Amino acid sequence: MQISRAELKYLASLSQKKVRSEEQKFLLEGWRALKEVINSSHKIEMVAVLQRYLEDPDYERILSQLKQRRTAVKEISPADLKKVADTVHSQGVLALVHQRQFPLNDEFLRRARLVVAADSLSDPGNLGSILRSADWFGVDAVLLGKGCVELHNEKVVRATVGSMFHLPVVENLDLPATLAAMKESGFLIVVLSGDGDKIYTEQGVQGKTVFVLGSEGHGVSADVRHLADVVVKIPRVGSAESLNVGVACGIMLAHARAQIKDHQAH
Amino acid sequence: MQISRAELKYLASLSQKKVRSEEQKFLLEGWRALKEVINSSHKIEMVAVLQRYLEDPDYERILSQLKQRRTAVKEISPADLKKVADTVHSQGVLALVHQRQFPLNDEFLRRARLVVAADSLSDPGNLGSILRSADWFGVDAVLLGKGCVELHNEKVVRATVGSMFHLPVVENLDLPATLAAMKESGFLIVVLSGDGDKIYTEQGVQGKTVFVLGSEGHGVSADVRHLADVVVKIPRVGSAESLNVGVACGIMLAHARAQIKDHQAH
Repeated sequence: MQISRAELKYLASLSQKKVRSEEQKFLLEGWRALKEVINSSHKIEMVAVLQRYLEDPDYERILSQLKQRRTAVKEISPADLKKVADTVHSQGVLALVHQRQFPLNDEFLRRARLVVAADSLSDPGNLGSILRSADWFGVDAVLLGKGCVELHNEKVVRATVGSMFHLPVVENLDLPATLAAMKESGFLIVVLSGDGDKIYTEQGVQGKTVFVLGSEGHGVSADVRHLADVVVKIPRVGSAESLNVGVACGIMLAHARAQIKDHQAH
Repeated sequence: MQISRAELKYLASLSQKKVRSEEQKFLLEGWRALKEVINSSHKIEMVAVLQRYLEDPDYERILSQLKQRRTAVKEISPADLKKVADTVHSQGVLALVHQRQFPLNDEFLRRARLVVAADSLSDPGNLGSILRSADWFGVDAVLLGKGCVELHNEKVVRATVGSMFHLPVVENLDLPATLAAMKESGFLIVVLSGDGDKIYTEQGVQGKTVFVLGSEGHGVSADVRHLADVVVKIPRVGSAESLNVGVACGIMLAHARAQIKDHQAH
């Protein structure tokens, strides 16, 4: 069935952050991302596809999976697709997906072991790469403070390459209050900063740990830093002004994972 | 002095890769990048500034540094700046800079200790973050194969945050031939790949080492992999399909740096 004018208008409106937030939905582009979301617990409201894929045997399997899930699959024209999506990345397919909200409850705080929190990241690519690293290293959740770029921003969705469907991400948090509650629940608050007091490799990661990242330009806020049990740094040998925050996060998580593995092996 | 029409036309032409390559020049945006290039050995041909900065005492020091270097500083109108630069990032200043070519000669091969090589990176942000990490961890040079995104692409220049002026970067290499020559010179060729044979933390980095990164989509080419002394991987605990290549590079370099430090301490 052909997508309607009203549906197209609705899809286009989701390019606005305000609408995404009110409707609690977002758009997903591309076949790879569609596969990931089908295997997640996210509700898919509708999929819009260029006609040629509807008849292509290579896409039969994924289209029949959608049929089994009773997800509406509609045909969209190239011109209409261009209006609602970034055609380079959409690869001829678009999904309308419900956002999921993960609660930060007592159960979560009791079970979680390794968590990443970000104070106020502004770059979508950085948030995307942090979610991929968190997913790769088996982090239990990623927590985003109020100042962070929106999780369902199309550039973030694209940069996570599906990882946003693999792990709980909690947005819009009052990060100082959240970290204070986590401290009460036995988490060690490890803040990462260029001017940290301790070299990261000297920091054990045996117990419940939350790694806190700052913004690209200004690092962590004073409120958040105040809650740190330890502020660690990645030592500089050369002359770069800073490391990319996504790279720094990856280095911390690789270190943590190597430690936890050593610990479990003993 | 006001910038001329001919000069503006020339600056605008440098948005094309072909022209940058023929002219061996590129454009640099923003005050921070300008400070970095002033402290480097790159030749600055001309700086174009909005009028308001020419009279602002905050910019007096950097403008007098340019005067001492006998670099032409020209006034550019906001409308003209908009035509030749990304105004969000230019912060009202633009520099015309000569590219520098670093030779990969015997002297370099004898002295270098830790090198990063990239086979065919396509994302400017990834190359930028790799150059920042290489600079942060004191890598001796970054080598780019023929398939890589161009170093002087404006997005790469922006993403390196000055690091491209701190360390030798060699472009357009026949990477298999270069790696074969490095092997002759005593380098251990360590290829990073998701399906590596050895966990990266188990790989010693005591001698001359080159870390080789593949492309975002396809990893390293068969020709390059064939030259590897060892193919290492960063173990996955969660379910992400891959790590961002810039993050993976950062993790390898952090590991290498910790090892070299340990080694030097003994």
